[in-house]
Amino acid sequence: MTTTRAFAAQSPTTPLGAHSIERREPGPHDVKIDILFCGVCHSDLHTARGEWEGTKYPCVPGHEIVGKVVAVGAHVTKFAAGDRVGVGCMVDSCRECESCKAGNEQYCYAGNVGTYNGKDTHLGGHTLGGYSASITVDEDFVLRIPDGLPLDATAPLLCAGITLYSPLMHWHAGSGKRVGIVGLGGLGHMGVKIARALGAHVTMITTSPGKAKDAAKLGAHDVIISTDTAQMKAAEKTFDLLMNTVSATHDFNAISRLLKVDGAHVLLGVPPTDFPPPVVGRMIGNRLTLAGSTIGGIRETQEMLEFCARHDIVSDIEMIRMDQINEAYERMLRGDVKYRFVIDMATLKAA
Amino acid sequence: MTTTRAFAAQSPTTPLGAHSIERREPGPHDVKIDILFCGVCHSDLHTARGEWEGTKYPCVPGHEIVGKVVAVGAHVTKFAAGDRVGVGCMVDSCRECESCKAGNEQYCYAGNVGTYNGKDTHLGGHTLGGYSASITVDEDFVLRIPDGLPLDATAPLLCAGITLYSPLMHWHAGSGKRVGIVGLGGLGHMGVKIARALGAHVTMITTSPGKAKDAAKLGAHDVIISTDTAQMKAAEKTFDLLMNTVSATHDFNAISRLLKVDGAHVLLGVPPTDFPPPVVGRMIGNRLTLAGSTIGGIRETQEMLEFCARHDIVSDIEMIRMDQINEAYERMLRGDVKYRFVIDMATLKAA
Repeated sequence: MTTTRAFAAQSPTTPLGAHSIERREPGPHDVKIDILFCGVCHSDLHTARGEWEGTKYPCVPGHEIVGKVVAVGAHVTKFAAGDRVGVGCMVDSCRECESCKAGNEQYCYAGNVGTYNGKDTHLGGHTLGGYSASITVDEDFVLRIPDGLPLDATAPLLCAGITLYSPLMHWHAGSGKRVGIVGLGGLGHMGVKIARALGAHVTMITTSPGKAKDAAKLGAHDVIISTDTAQMKAAEKTFDLLMNTVSATHDFNAISRLLKVDGAHVLLGVPPTDFPPPVVGRMIGNRLTLAGSTIGGIRETQEMLEFCARHDIVSDIEMIRMDQINEAYERMLRGDVKYRFVIDMATLKAA
Repeated sequence: MTTTRAFAAQSPTTPLGAHSIERREPGPHDVKIDILFCGVCHSDLHTARGEWEGTKYPCVPGHEIVGKVVAVGAHVTKFAAGDRVGVGCMVDSCRECESCKAGNEQYCYAGNVGTYNGKDTHLGGHTLGGYSASITVDEDFVLRIPDGLPLDATAPLLCAGITLYSPLMHWHAGSGKRVGIVGLGGLGHMGVKIARALGAHVTMITTSPGKAKDAAKLGAHDVIISTDTAQMKAAEKTFDLLMNTVSATHDFNAISRLLKVDGAHVLLGVPPTDFPPPVVGRMIGNRLTLAGSTIGGIRETQEMLEFCARHDIVSDIEMIRMDQINEAYERMLRGDVKYRFVIDMATLKAA
């Protein structure tokens, strides 16, 4: 084991601060990675603050990890020292269930092992994420960062990027399809870029008129302000696919009205407890789908990285120092980030 | 126009009784049908009693119509006098929208013309359904009853049958798939028969232990009593597809728990107003679909009739006289029918 510098929350109410953790030495199938950048996801904040059930402390968040391989186990075949790699939201899964065999480890029937707050089957206790100097991960859960993608702005692709890419592919976004991206934040801005690159007609659906210009810059063909009833009415039954990234309470039925017959409304944001009941009559009368989706499998995540490299897609980021993380969380809560914070992990030493 | 004997409700609170209506003479594309049998759907009752918005009176219900062609218009090519035919829930649609062009007239963007309580574009006023001696319908909305299917027990296929066949086909029920049919009534009993004939493993999901034997007789491989928490727990994440025919208030989230990853829960029953909010976290974590579906297109309804003929599928029916309709409605409300009332329209003369 190697003692490793990290940043952790010690309880739901303590700010994150410097902390030492242990990382395992690489086993035969492991890759040891020096972490260079780590994206900051809303899940980090929710987990660190114990807002979802079951956070284990100390909590080291971070599941948008990029870095360089520094050592590999004896049987590792896919990676070598010096390789540019990434780790997303999972570091393992059962590998035997129907989902795992289909390459959908995110839907593992036994539950995948989260990059943080999962069950650490190697050292015991719980897994610790990317707000740290290094991480050791089974090679099957390590992604290769294609040449040409900058490491820092690629980090958010590993969670925000794949969270949009996977459902856009699954529900066949592409040429001739009208796709609405609901909500312009970390997830939404990736949705606009990826849906546009897939050839779809892309509409940003937002409550904020101020975001129209930004949406256009990101690649949206047009914008609907969802609080404008005339605009919403005019757009009824015109969308094939709605990717809903909003995690705050909202009336998803009003948004569903934009769906054409056979359209699908896919919920991606972490749900509040007080969602309204679905308007079932409308679903029946138009064969609508309301669905959910989360991240993507490892093979699909690799495919997404290569797609992004071909289309020059990365996240819009604001780089922060490790010691700015608590302030960054506050800014995220205010929606004050365009569109993803990424921690320069070189700053961990001084933090 | 021909004055035609019918049975109608004159207001939400009056029982149905004898009534005279006018039917148009066949136009160039019309088929005039002597009605021999008419199935009794829950929609008939809801509409006659004004339980849904917008019932126009006098109301002549009935959209599970079978009979014989007695006259055809000059340009009719598909039918001739003497043909055994049926009319389901629609008698027209715009024929120009995306849905109509795809053969999904049930999802017509302009709204299809219901067999009753629709807008009568020929005579003005509203359309009048199958509780009558004859009906005149455009040939494009007339179905051919395949040889070998008995007319009386085929009538309910035109609504109950297609309501299950269409989503079972759309969501790929078949060999290797586990399909749950939720609720054993008019719709549910057709679902069991059709899903079984499609080659799926079929489970009846019901609140009533007393229905287990009947479900097996209809073709279900097994039964889950949905009020038995142990049975429900044991069946979690084992179904590819759930066809929910229950129109009473119920917790569809509990039923959704039976879905495997990528499973679809399709709502077919007319929705109550007080459905619970969906458990979105589970939908996201398992890429679940919650969807709705209604009847099927004309081409698909013809295909369904031919499928049923090949597989010897008809509805289980109880024949009634026209003057028993009000009593039949009361029995339907008590669930006292196995599984569909069909009116012998020869009894209309004496009613």
